[in-house]
Amino acid sequence: MSHGIIGWLGTGRMGTAIVNRLLDADRPVMVWNRTPAKTGPLAVRGAQVADSIATLAACDVVYVMVSGPADLEEVVLGEGGLLGGDARPGVLVDCSTVSEEVSARIRAAAAALDVAFLAAPVCGNPEVIAEGQGSFIVSGPVKVFEQVRPDLEVVAKTVVHVGEREQARLVKLAHNLYLGMMVQSLVEVVTLAEKAGTSRAAFMEFFNGSALTSPWIRRRGPELVDRDWHLTFTTELLRKDFDLGLAAARELEVPMPTTSAVYQLIQSAIGHGLRDEDFLSLYELQAASAGLAADA
Amino acid sequence: MSHGIIGWLGTGRMGTAIVNRLLDADRPVMVWNRTPAKTGPLAVRGAQVADSIATLAACDVVYVMVSGPADLEEVVLGEGGLLGGDARPGVLVDCSTVSEEVSARIRAAAAALDVAFLAAPVCGNPEVIAEGQGSFIVSGPVKVFEQVRPDLEVVAKTVVHVGEREQARLVKLAHNLYLGMMVQSLVEVVTLAEKAGTSRAAFMEFFNGSALTSPWIRRRGPELVDRDWHLTFTTELLRKDFDLGLAAARELEVPMPTTSAVYQLIQSAIGHGLRDEDFLSLYELQAASAGLAADA
Amino acid sequence: MSHGIIGWLGTGRMGTAIVNRLLDADRPVMVWNRTPAKTGPLAVRGAQVADSIATLAACDVVYVMVSGPADLEEVVLGEGGLLGGDARPGVLVDCSTVSEEVSARIRAAAAALDVAFLAAPVCGNPEVIAEGQGSFIVSGPVKVFEQVRPDLEVVAKTVVHVGEREQARLVKLAHNLYLGMMVQSLVEVVTLAEKAGTSRAAFMEFFNGSALTSPWIRRRGPELVDRDWHLTFTTELLRKDFDLGLAAARELEVPMPTTSAVYQLIQSAIGHGLRDEDFLSLYELQAASAGLAADA
Amino acid sequence: MSHGIIGWLGTGRMGTAIVNRLLDADRPVMVWNRTPAKTGPLAVRGAQVADSIATLAACDVVYVMVSGPADLEEVVLGEGGLLGGDARPGVLVDCSTVSEEVSARIRAAAAALDVAFLAAPVCGNPEVIAEGQGSFIVSGPVKVFEQVRPDLEVVAKTVVHVGEREQARLVKLAHNLYLGMMVQSLVEVVTLAEKAGTSRAAFMEFFNGSALTSPWIRRRGPELVDRDWHLTFTTELLRKDFDLGLAAARELEVPMPTTSAVYQLIQSAIGHGLRDEDFLSLYELQAASAGLAADA
Repeated sequence: MSHGIIGWLGTGRMGTAIVNRLLDADRPVMVWNRTPAKTGPLAVRGAQVADSIATLAACDVVYVMVSGPADLEEVVLGEGGLLGGDARPGVLVDCSTVSEEVSARIRAAAAALDVAFLAAPVCGNPEVIAEGQGSFIVSGPVKVFEQVRPDLEVVAKTVVHVGEREQARLVKLAHNLYLGMMVQSLVEVVTLAEKAGTSRAAFMEFFNGSALTSPWIRRRGPELVDRDWHLTFTTELLRKDFDLGLAAARELEVPMPTTSAVYQLIQSAIGHGLRDEDFLSLYELQAASAGLAADA
Repeated sequence: MSHGIIGWLGTGRMGTAIVNRLLDADRPVMVWNRTPAKTGPLAVRGAQVADSIATLAACDVVYVMVSGPADLEEVVLGEGGLLGGDARPGVLVDCSTVSEEVSARIRAAAAALDVAFLAAPVCGNPEVIAEGQGSFIVSGPVKVFEQVRPDLEVVAKTVVHVGEREQARLVKLAHNLYLGMMVQSLVEVVTLAEKAGTSRAAFMEFFNGSALTSPWIRRRGPELVDRDWHLTFTTELLRKDFDLGLAAARELEVPMPTTSAVYQLIQSAIGHGLRDEDFLSLYELQAASAGLAADA
Repeated sequence: MSHGIIGWLGTGRMGTAIVNRLLDADRPVMVWNRTPAKTGPLAVRGAQVADSIATLAACDVVYVMVSGPADLEEVVLGEGGLLGGDARPGVLVDCSTVSEEVSARIRAAAAALDVAFLAAPVCGNPEVIAEGQGSFIVSGPVKVFEQVRPDLEVVAKTVVHVGEREQARLVKLAHNLYLGMMVQSLVEVVTLAEKAGTSRAAFMEFFNGSALTSPWIRRRGPELVDRDWHLTFTTELLRKDFDLGLAAARELEVPMPTTSAVYQLIQSAIGHGLRDEDFLSLYELQAASAGLAADA
Repeated sequence: MSHGIIGWLGTGRMGTAIVNRLLDADRPVMVWNRTPAKTGPLAVRGAQVADSIATLAACDVVYVMVSGPADLEEVVLGEGGLLGGDARPGVLVDCSTVSEEVSARIRAAAAALDVAFLAAPVCGNPEVIAEGQGSFIVSGPVKVFEQVRPDLEVVAKTVVHVGEREQARLVKLAHNLYLGMMVQSLVEVVTLAEKAGTSRAAFMEFFNGSALTSPWIRRRGPELVDRDWHLTFTTELLRKDFDLGLAAARELEVPMPTTSAVYQLIQSAIGHGLRDEDFLSLYELQAASAGLAADA
C-alpha cells in the first residue's frame, strides 16, 4: 500500500486542473486515465502514473472524476475496477456529477467492502479551479471528511461538509436552480429598465456596482449587454438541471413556486427556438414578450 | 452667487453621511435643514449653514434629500422654496426616493425657470455611504450629469447615468424588485437543501463561497441561518416596492412573470402573519409550505 | 309620483334587451335616453317615454344603465340629474359597470337625500338577456333588494344578493378573472393534447361532453378550434379587467397566484402582437411557446 | 368463436355499471372476474359468465377494466391471459387507467398476434355512468373504433376518437389537469369575494347561474360552501395526476405555466397538512394566505 500518495482517476480537463493544484502544493499524486496520453502533462510535473486501476487502488485515498454515472459505475464497480481487486483504498471520493441514486449505490457497494465513501462534486470550471476559486461540496461521514479536508483545501477556496449521506448531490442541483432564477430575475429587471429607456450597458454598470450583483453576473454581464449567446451552457442543459432539481424537490415534497415559474419560462424559450443558445438568451424571450424591438 | 459652493438641503442620517464624504474631500458645502440643530455636526466639520432656503438657492448646484414627495414639493416648489425666490440654482439634484410622476413635475417646473434637473436616487444605507460603497443612479441631461459627476464620485463608488428623463426612479425600483426575487430564490433552495438534511449554516457556507452569492447575501446570510427577522426592511415595505415596480412594468407593458410570482408570495407571507417581520422571513412561509417542522 | 311604474334610464343595446323582458311580463315601464330615437322600439311595445330625467325621477324605482362612470355621475349627480331635482326616486338601481369607488360615491350622495341605492351589474350580453339567461349581481340593503327582486327575476334567471355595500362590483370582477383563468387553463390542456396528436376539434368534442365544460366554452369552443379570433372581447380589454380585479385583490390583501400568472401571460400575449385579437388568442402564445407549427 | 357476444373482463364497480348499460340495451355480454362472486348481479340480469379467461378470449371484442397496470399486464399478457391461449379476440379494448408506456406495450404485444387494440379510458364515476352521462376517450385505429363505437355509445353520451396511438391516455390526464386548475381558479375568486364581504354561498349561487360554471362545480359547490372536505379525491391523488400530466408535458416540450403554478400550490397545501383531505380543500390554503379568519 502506498501510504500518503493521493490516487486520482480521471485526468480530463477538470481532473487535470485539480491535480495541478495538488502538485503545486507538493502533494504526491498517482494518476490513472483510460486514455493514457492525457496523463502526460501531469507526469512531466511529477505525478506518478499508475499502469492499472489495480495499482491506483492501493492508495489510501482515491479520487474519481469521470464524465457520468456509467463511467463511474464501471471504474468503481466493474471488472478490474477500484473495488474489484484485492487491494482497495480506505477512502473513495467521487467528484463526478451523478444522481443521488447512483451515489447511494456506490456508497453501499463501498460500505460492503469497508471502503468509506465521500460524494464531493465540484463547482467551477477548469479556469476557476486553476485560480483556486472553486468549491467542493462534500457529503459522507464527517470523520472521513476531516481526513481528506486538507487536500481539498489545497485545491479550492470553499470546502463544505453538507451531510452524512448524498446531500452533496442535491446541494449542487440547488446551486444550479438558483443560477437559473438569478438569470431570469436579472433579465426581467433589465428589460423593464430597457423599455423605460435605460440601455442594458448602463443598467449593468449600475447593477454591478450594487450589493445585489454576484461574481457570476459580473463575469457574464458583458454578454448579456451584447446579446452574445455563444455557447457556455445551453438552455436545454439548464432545463436538464431543472428537471433533476425539481424531481428532487418533488421527492422531498418541497414546493418551489419561483423555481417552477422559471422552469416553465425555460421550456417556453426552447419552444421559441432558443434551445441551443446559451441560457442567457432567456433575455430574448423576455424582450419579445415585452414587445421590445430587436436591436439593430 | 456663491460660485463653487455645493448647496445641500436635508441633513437627516443619509444627507449627513453624504455631506461628510464631501467634507472629507475638502469640498466646500453649504447646508440647510428644517430642524437647524441637525446641521450642527456638519458645521463643526466646516460646512457653512444657510439661514434660509433663499440663501442656499444662490449656490450653483443644490442637492435635495428629503423624506418623501410631499417634502420635496414643498422645499422646491412651495413658498420660500428653492425655485420660489429671485436667486435660483443653475442645477437642482434630487436624491430623495420619489415616483416618476413627482420627478417629472419637479423637472417641468425647474425647466420653466431655466433650472436644470437631475434625478439621483441613492442605493445604500448611511453606513454603506460612509464607507464609500454607495451608488448614485442619475437621470437627466447628460451634460448636466457630467458637470456634477466629480462631486458624486467623491461620495459613491458607483455613479451611473441611466437616461435623459426620470429613468433613475425606475432603475431604483428594478433594484428592489431584484432584491425580492433574490431572497425568494435563495429561500427556495435553502429549504430544499434543508429538507434533504443540509443545515442552513452549511448551505450558506457553501453558497457564500460560490460565484452566485452577492455582497447583500453575504451580509444578511447569518440572519437567515439564525431565523433572526429583526427589522431592517419589513415584508410590508417590500410589498410597497413591488406595488410600485409592478405598476411601472404594467405602464410600460413589460410582463414580469417571476417578479409577479414573488409578489404573490410576499402577499401570502403577509396573510400568514409576517407583515412586520424583516422580509427575510419569506423563509418562514416557504418552510411551512415545505412541511419543515419549526426549529427548536 | 307615478306609483308602480318602473323608471329606466339608458336604452342602449343592453338596456333595451332588459326593458323588453319587463314589457314581455306586462310590467309598466317609463324610459329615458339621451338620444331619444333609441327609445322608439320600446315605445312601440308600450313603454312610456319620459320627456326629461326630472319626469323619470318621479318613479318610485329608477334603474340606470349607461356606458361608464362619467355618464353615470352625470345622469345621477349632475345638473338636471336624477338626484338634482325636487322629485326623487325612493330607490336607485345602477346596472352599469363601474368601480367600487364610483359606486360608493353615488351611494353616499343618494343616502344624503334619503334615496336607497343598489349596485346591480349584469352578466350576459344582449342575446343572453333576451333569452332570460342573464344574471343580476346585487349589493345594497337587503330590504331594498327584496323590494325590487320580483322585477329583476322577470329579467334574469339568476338574481343574487352579495352584500350590503359595493360587493356586486367586486363579484363582477371576480367573474371576469375566472373567465381569463378558464380560457388559459383550457388553452394549456388543448395544446398539450394537440402536440401529442389529438386535434383541437377532437379534444373539444371530448371536453364539451365532460363535466368540466361550461356554457361559455361550449359556445366559444368552435372559434378556438378554428383559430377564429374575431372580436368579441380583446386581449387588451381582458387585461383591463385583470388590472381592476388584481388592484381590488391587492387592496383586500388577497394573494391571487394563479390569476396573477395568467395576468402575466395576457401581458406577454400583448407583447407578442395579440392586443387587438379576441382573448381566445391566448392560444396563439401558448402554441408558439410549445413550438407547435402554425396550422396551414 | 362466439360471434357478436361482447366480452367483458373486470366487474368491479365501474365495470358493473358499464355492463349494466349494455344489458339495458339488450346487448349480449359475457363477463369474467377474478373474484367470481362479483359477476352474480350481472348474471341475474342475463350476462353469461365465462369460466376462464380463455373462454372469454373467444369473443370477437373483449373489453378490459382492471384497477391498474400490473393487473392489466397480467390478464392480457400473463399466463392464461387474453393473448396467451389459442383463441384470441379480434379486438381488445382497454378501459383501465394506465400510462402511455404500458398502453404502448400492450398494443405492440397485441399487434404481434394480429389483435387490434384500443385505449379507451372512461371519465365519470359509477353513478355518472349509470345515468349515461359518462365519456369514452378512445385512441387506436379509426376503423376499429368505428366497429365498436355503437356499443360504446350505448354506454356513454360522449364517445370521441382522439388519435391513432395512445393519445387517449394523455387526454385523460389533460382532463385532470384542467380539473385542478378549475378548482384553484374558483378558490381564488371565492376568497376574493369573501374577503370583500360576500359569503361563499352567495358567490356560488351567482357563479352557478353564470355561463362560467360547470356541471362539476354545480355538483361540488355545496361542499366548498360548507368547507366539507370529505373524501372524494384527495389532494395527494390530485398531485399524482399532476405528476403524470406534467411529466407528459415535459416529454412533449409543452410549457404549462398555469398548470405548474397550481401544481406548486397543491404541493404547498400538502405541506400545510391537507394531504388527505379532498382537494377542494385548496380553499383552506388560499383562505389562510388571504388572512381570512377560519369560520366559527
